[in-house]
Amino acid sequence: MAENVILVGKKPVMNYVLATLTQLNEGAKEVTVKARGKAIGRAVDVVEIVKNRFVPGLKVKGIKIDTEEIVSQDGKKVNVSTIEITIEK
Amino acid sequence: MAENVILVGKKPVMNYVLATLTQLNEGAKEVTVKARGKAIGRAVDVVEIVKNRFVPGLKVKGIKIDTEEIVSQDGKKVNVSTIEITIEK
Repeated sequence: MAENVILVGKKPVMNYVLATLTQLNEGAKEVTVKARGKAIGRAVDVVEIVKNRFVPGLKVKGIKIDTEEIVSQDGKKVNVSTIEITIEK
Repeated sequence: MAENVILVGKKPVMNYVLATLTQLNEGAKEVTVKARGKAIGRAVDVVEIVKNRFVPGLKVKGIKIDTEEIVSQDGKKVNVSTIEITIEK
């Protein structure tokens, strides 16, 4: 089963809104919006904008938070928070 | 019933971690960590740090996201995303 995932990064929020709407319009019943670190707030924005402006009946099925260990450019291990928001038509 | 709420803003993340730990140590079974806008990522950091470093058995009971309309300094209405993370000992 292909998972429909939108990974939110540093681009403008509407890019990810559009990507999410595209997934939903192509027949996805569920889409998972993921982000980590500073993009977490933007992932929440994406879901809220999709829900409030474009897909009124949209449900937030579940939200998970977690921590990932990443290795920074100078070789140090750094913990970064992550979020996964699963939405459902 | 008094609700135990930590409102996460612009201070360093450890301030809010300490506030959350204080609530839990004073007998709160549940604490709700709230934030909006750019502080959303920091609220997730607070919960992850409390869980991973200080209170291993901590459970995330629920996460809610929403939108609030606020009036900016120049009188414009602006939508801002919010998050509420409820944790449980």
